[in-house]
Amino acid sequence: MTDVADPLSQQKTEARAWFEALRDRIHAAFEALEDAAPAGLFPGEPGRFVRTPWERAEGGGGVMGMMHCRLFEKVGVHVSTVHGTFPADYAKGVPGAADDPRFFATGISLIAHPVSPRVPAVHMNTRFIATTKGWFGGGGDLTPVLDADRRQDHPDTVAFHAAMKAACDAHDPEWHARFKAWCDEYFFLPHRKEPRGTGGIFYDHLDSGDRGRDFAFTRDVGEAFLKVYPEIVARRMVEPWTAEEREEQLVRRGRYVEFNLLYDRGTMFGLKTGGNVESILSSMPPVVKWP
Amino acid sequence: MTDVADPLSQQKTEARAWFEALRDRIHAAFEALEDAAPAGLFPGEPGRFVRTPWERAEGGGGVMGMMHCRLFEKVGVHVSTVHGTFPADYAKGVPGAADDPRFFATGISLIAHPVSPRVPAVHMNTRFIATTKGWFGGGGDLTPVLDADRRQDHPDTVAFHAAMKAACDAHDPEWHARFKAWCDEYFFLPHRKEPRGTGGIFYDHLDSGDRGRDFAFTRDVGEAFLKVYPEIVARRMVEPWTAEEREEQLVRRGRYVEFNLLYDRGTMFGLKTGGNVESILSSMPPVVKWP
Repeated sequence: MTDVADPLSQQKTEARAWFEALRDRIHAAFEALEDAAPAGLFPGEPGRFVRTPWERAEGGGGVMGMMHCRLFEKVGVHVSTVHGTFPADYAKGVPGAADDPRFFATGISLIAHPVSPRVPAVHMNTRFIATTKGWFGGGGDLTPVLDADRRQDHPDTVAFHAAMKAACDAHDPEWHARFKAWCDEYFFLPHRKEPRGTGGIFYDHLDSGDRGRDFAFTRDVGEAFLKVYPEIVARRMVEPWTAEEREEQLVRRGRYVEFNLLYDRGTMFGLKTGGNVESILSSMPPVVKWP
Repeated sequence: MTDVADPLSQQKTEARAWFEALRDRIHAAFEALEDAAPAGLFPGEPGRFVRTPWERAEGGGGVMGMMHCRLFEKVGVHVSTVHGTFPADYAKGVPGAADDPRFFATGISLIAHPVSPRVPAVHMNTRFIATTKGWFGGGGDLTPVLDADRRQDHPDTVAFHAAMKAACDAHDPEWHARFKAWCDEYFFLPHRKEPRGTGGIFYDHLDSGDRGRDFAFTRDVGEAFLKVYPEIVARRMVEPWTAEEREEQLVRRGRYVEFNLLYDRGTMFGLKTGGNVESILSSMPPVVKWP
C-alpha cells in the first residue's frame, strides 16, 4: 500500500514487512530451542510465545511477543509500527523534524533473559524511522552474566562479534569498527564504571545516501543475530550451573535494570512520553537481586 | 567545634550530632524488633547493623549502616556529612550558591525492606544543607506493598500520617497539609499512574526565618518516625503471610526500583556526580520481580 504523495512510502511498507517476518523467524527459532533444551536441566514443558496486540492512541501500535519458560525465563520479541507528531522540544533534535514534526517508526526489539547463568542474555533492536528524512538504526549486544564469561576472548563473545562484523563488512569495511565502538560507548554504566555486557554493534541515523544498502545492512544484522545467538544458546544450554552462578546472574541483572532505567534513551523517552509501559518494561529481568 | 568566620558553623555541628544520635537510636530500635520478631515466622538469629565508614574524595564522608536479616530483609540507616563545591551548572539552581558554589550537607537516610509483605516498607531522610544560606529538608513516607494495605484508611497509614501531622502541627499549623501534598506529588510514578506508597511528608529548602524552629521540626520528624514505624512493624510482624502475598511484594518492589532510578532526584544526582554508589543504591530492594 504505497502513498504516491510520500516518497518514503514503499520503504516504510517494506521495512515493516521485514521486521514482522524476522519476528516470526526468531519466535520459531527460540521455540525450537525451548524444545531442544535438556530436560534434566530445564524441567517442564517447552514454552511458546504469547502475542498481545496493542494500539497507540495517536496512531499505529504493535504486537508484544512474550515467552516465560524453562530455557528462556523471560524473553520479549516485539514489533511496532507507529506514527504521530513529536513534541516540539524533541522535534528540534531529530533529523528532518524541525519544520515538520510528524514521524513514522517501525521496528523489532528483543531482549532475552535465560534461566541458566551459563547462557548469555542478549538484546537486539532494528528500526526504520521517517520524518521528512528517513534512516535506519539499531544493533545487537551480548550480556554474559558470569564474570568468567565476560571476556572479549570468550567463544560466545568472539562468535557474536564475528557475526556482527560479517554483517557490517558486506556493506562497508569501516562500519564494524565504528558501530562496535558506538556500542561500547553506549552500553556502559558510568556510576559502576563497567560495561553492560561484552558488546556488539550499535548504529543510529544511518542514512548513507543509498537507502537500499542501509536496508540490506539492517536485514543482515537481523540475519546475523538469528544465526549466531541460537548457536550460542545451543552450545551453552547443555552446561549445568551452580547456585552461586545463579546468584551472580541475579545480581548482574540488577546492573541491567540500572542501565535501562538510568541511561537507556529509548526506555526513558518511551516512559516519559506515554509509550506502552508493558512493552517498554518487558525488558526488565524476571528476578533480580540487590544484596 | 565552631568556626567564628562561619555563621552557620554551630548549626552544622548540632545538626550532624543530632542525625548521628538519631541513627544510633534507630539502629537500637530496629535491632530490638529483630529480637522480638516471632521465631515461627522469622527463622534464624536476630540481625545486627554493620557499620561501614566511607570517605568522599572532595571532603567528608559517612557511615553506611546495613542490616540483612530475618525481619528486615534489607535495611540501610546511614549518616553522611560532606562538603565541596557544586558544579557550576548545578550551583545556579541552588539557593545561595550562585556566587559561591561551596556547600556543606549533613543528614540521615533510611530505607527498610521487610521480609514480610504484611510489614510496610518505609523511607525517611532528613538533612541540613548550607551554602551562603542554610536550610533543612527531608521527610518520611510509608510503602505498604500489598494492595489490601495501600489505602488511606488502613490503620498503618492512618498512624503514620497522624505521627507526621503531630510533628508538623507542633511548629506550624499549615505545614502538614503542604508537606503531605508535596510528598504525594513527589512519590508518584507517572508512567504507571500510581503512587509509590501511601504517602507521608516531604519538605525541602525549609528556611522559615527561625532556624531554631526549623531544626526543632526536623528533630520532631525524626522522633515521630522513631516512634510510629516500630509500632507499625510490631503490630504487623505477628501476621503470617501467603506465597501469593510474597509474590505481590516482589513485584511491587519493582515499582520502587523504577521510581528510584527514573525519578528520584537524589539518586540520579548522586549517581551521575560521583556519589558513593554503594550507599546510594543501598535503597534497592534485596529481591525484585518483573514477571
